[in-house]
Amino acid sequence: MSKTNPGRFFEDYRVGQVIRHAVPRTVAEGERALYHALYPARHALCSSDEFAAASGLESSPLDDLLAFHVVFGKTVPDVSLNAVANLGYAEGRWLAPVWPGDTIRSESQVIGLKQNSNGKSGVVWVRTRGLNQMDQPVLEYVRWVMVRKRDAEAPAPETVVPDLAGAVAPGDLVIPEGLDFTGYDFELAGEPHRWGDYAVGERIDHIDGVTIEEAEHMLATRLWQNTAKVHFDATNREDGKRLIYGGHVISMARALSFNGLANAQLIVALNGGAHANPCFAGDTVRAWSEVLDKAETGAPGVGAIRLRLVATRGASAGFPLKGEDGKYLPEVLLDLDYWALMPL
Amino acid sequence: MSKTNPGRFFEDYRVGQVIRHAVPRTVAEGERALYHALYPARHALCSSDEFAAASGLESSPLDDLLAFHVVFGKTVPDVSLNAVANLGYAEGRWLAPVWPGDTIRSESQVIGLKQNSNGKSGVVWVRTRGLNQMDQPVLEYVRWVMVRKRDAEAPAPETVVPDLAGAVAPGDLVIPEGLDFTGYDFELAGEPHRWGDYAVGERIDHIDGVTIEEAEHMLATRLWQNTAKVHFDATNREDGKRLIYGGHVISMARALSFNGLANAQLIVALNGGAHANPCFAGDTVRAWSEVLDKAETGAPGVGAIRLRLVATRGASAGFPLKGEDGKYLPEVLLDLDYWALMPL
Amino acid sequence: MSKTNPGRFFEDYRVGQVIRHAVPRTVAEGERALYHALYPARHALCSSDEFAAASGLESSPLDDLLAFHVVFGKTVPDVSLNAVANLGYAEGRWLAPVWPGDTIRSESQVIGLKQNSNGKSGVVWVRTRGLNQMDQPVLEYVRWVMVRKRDAEAPAPETVVPDLAGAVAPGDLVIPEGLDFTGYDFELAGEPHRWGDYAVGERIDHIDGVTIEEAEHMLATRLWQNTAKVHFDATNREDGKRLIYGGHVISMARALSFNGLANAQLIVALNGGAHANPCFAGDTVRAWSEVLDKAETGAPGVGAIRLRLVATRGASAGFPLKGEDGKYLPEVLLDLDYWALMPL
Repeated sequence: MSKTNPGRFFEDYRVGQVIRHAVPRTVAEGERALYHALYPARHALCSSDEFAAASGLESSPLDDLLAFHVVFGKTVPDVSLNAVANLGYAEGRWLAPVWPGDTIRSESQVIGLKQNSNGKSGVVWVRTRGLNQMDQPVLEYVRWVMVRKRDAEAPAPETVVPDLAGAVAPGDLVIPEGLDFTGYDFELAGEPHRWGDYAVGERIDHIDGVTIEEAEHMLATRLWQNTAKVHFDATNREDGKRLIYGGHVISMARALSFNGLANAQLIVALNGGAHANPCFAGDTVRAWSEVLDKAETGAPGVGAIRLRLVATRGASAGFPLKGEDGKYLPEVLLDLDYWALMPL
Repeated sequence: MSKTNPGRFFEDYRVGQVIRHAVPRTVAEGERALYHALYPARHALCSSDEFAAASGLESSPLDDLLAFHVVFGKTVPDVSLNAVANLGYAEGRWLAPVWPGDTIRSESQVIGLKQNSNGKSGVVWVRTRGLNQMDQPVLEYVRWVMVRKRDAEAPAPETVVPDLAGAVAPGDLVIPEGLDFTGYDFELAGEPHRWGDYAVGERIDHIDGVTIEEAEHMLATRLWQNTAKVHFDATNREDGKRLIYGGHVISMARALSFNGLANAQLIVALNGGAHANPCFAGDTVRAWSEVLDKAETGAPGVGAIRLRLVATRGASAGFPLKGEDGKYLPEVLLDLDYWALMPL
Repeated sequence: MSKTNPGRFFEDYRVGQVIRHAVPRTVAEGERALYHALYPARHALCSSDEFAAASGLESSPLDDLLAFHVVFGKTVPDVSLNAVANLGYAEGRWLAPVWPGDTIRSESQVIGLKQNSNGKSGVVWVRTRGLNQMDQPVLEYVRWVMVRKRDAEAPAPETVVPDLAGAVAPGDLVIPEGLDFTGYDFELAGEPHRWGDYAVGERIDHIDGVTIEEAEHMLATRLWQNTAKVHFDATNREDGKRLIYGGHVISMARALSFNGLANAQLIVALNGGAHANPCFAGDTVRAWSEVLDKAETGAPGVGAIRLRLVATRGASAGFPLKGEDGKYLPEVLLDLDYWALMPL
């Protein structure tokens, strides 16, 4: 009997099934430092204990996307090892900060299944939750992927397509306990622009570009204990290229968005997202954002801003997104929709 | 007078000589995070404080091979700066876990000397011990290397060849204090296979491959404060290649072996090892294992498994090892023999 | 209105102006580990808590140059985003150790301005201070850069050229509180050479070389939150090269100088420095040093040594520096002048 993990195939999933993912992980100052070495992350709240304390938190939490990658990475061996495509995200919410020293584990529930008409694959929807050592949820999100069938002759399951929200409602955003931006220091944070300065529909070209190296995306992807072969093995594809973990592009684009959105301090919801085109080493990643919505929150001095974040390969000028055919332009890598918290 | 270190030559060693190696090192969460970024390490005991606590330990120890590399690195300026070849390991035992915050230093005793018949070099055997800040030994192993003579005319020392065990006896394995696998969570650990599921002679192809980059092996080797020029200086060899530290291949192969040996949680002995062929950036490393032996230990729920770990460049399918001439095949990088602890 | 940071131009500076730089940063064990992975740093005081305690300190401080890079990085968006050249350093002093867990911020005062005769740019002198979370200064230095004008027609400011010391006077060196080298362990530190063994005028070829990779210098530069585009964006220059942050070369050369200067434990002053030629990935960096001066300090067992540190691309043999025309040779990357502390 083979002892290695073949991954799950489409017919291995059942609606309602709960999967406890392997390998809990204690995350600490080392992960934070690596995150800041891998991405040009500068948002002050996740950079400085003092800034965090002045904002009502005990200390500086680990970066929101670091938490996402750790939770996500654990799901790969169970959810996407035989995935053909990562199709989408929805209803993502950060539920509590992750602090240095916390131990994170993940579990997923299958919430939808739909076999493709070709009978060779199907779409699996899972709702994943990250939990800390006190079994407190720190993050949840829905992801759906296209997964191969082991046996094309296996009968199709009953189709269940979950009803997912187009965006997290402002009232459902969870604000970290104690967060207070009334004494916010805009000079230390790096930019003067407050929540009131951003208009729905406004677009920002973040200008800066970073050329990506193989070593970097592999260091990142391993750190999140994401085992997908395509990211590491140059013999896996005919062209000898290693596909870069989509989350590497998300973190790179988010960090680049500091230039223009320095005060969008914390991501609190992931409304949706598409990895529009694959990213490879040698690509120079740029980013632009569009303000999609704004909302008040109950927390003192804290507003919420809904942003589209687009990562491109090459130019970000001109806000490239889709062609006349409605399809993503070839230079678009990522189209992400999230809520962040900002000082009023 | 030159102030730089020329390294020791063969005639500088005397049997019985004790060398206190330089530069003690405090290791902490940063080293752990880097270890997990450099290798796809997923063994739960060295990943999660909670998992370690459920296994009777205070918290998650630093990875066993991280401890090995730190101890080993310190010996390089004194033992292998003028080495022609790293010939073997024996009688390696991990004696106590290394915890974040511990300070490690190394010392070696020369236990054997044998001049080569050409008179230009000789073999030096050293027994190296790593010690923590309480002068408690954390690791010991024997290594032998071929070292150049400064002066070919220097007289040969009396030949002393130490009598080394072919493998550490099960009764000599040191189990970390408190270790208890009776409540082991196989689901969280990532695989259902327990000690009893492995048969002596069984071989496992770990399947996954990782293509290695220059930046990665240099980051690793520097982190262990290993100063051997061949790893860093592309002008050192005529072909412009940097030789990858053999320990980088050991850690990569061990991490890859998670897929099939996820429950071989801790390495406790190094019986032997050969760096069969040099590894260079661009190589895609794979691994396979063979079960060599099994033993019980006194610790609750804890079994010992003796494994051969073979790293290859390219395919691991077919379990490549040696040719008909008894020599390692050119695609074999490493042949390691170790004992690990596993839940019964 | 554009929300991104265009950087300051020459006419935006006023003598006396104080700039509080953005994004304070908590530095900890993660940054230390990364520093030791990026550079072959082995000076014992910044490697081992035990060695530091035996030298009268609480624990091992973060590397002196790590502190420099963190303080420096924050100034880039305000001082050198539109800089044409980094012209020099002076009067640099480390004022207190930076400990893991400290939060560092930076502020600069403009102390000199001189428009160039072409009217298109000018020189800006700033005195930068790094402060910890108790508002205690940890580092100060003067730097001057050539900055473009936004508008060539803008009137020239009154010329103010600060009067800067050629070197920090020995009496102005700040010795870390409690530092005591009377019980110094030369064997653990790695070399037997004490302060009295070095003669003014003596030169040391540090021999070892390190070939630099793109991934490494970008990891480093991002970790210091240095945002200068030229370091990250391969599309920024016509030749597709990324210019390596000068501080990466400083740290590499300083770490290489361990071989011959293992006991020059802590840098306490930066007298001057020139980035003689740009460094690119693929360059093999070597280093040599010259003893420029020696001084006693009040601290027990502690001497000060003033060193020239020269980094080269390729050979360090023969101590390459300047040609007959008085200009730096093309293989010279760095010419640095600093004070370090050494056991008497």
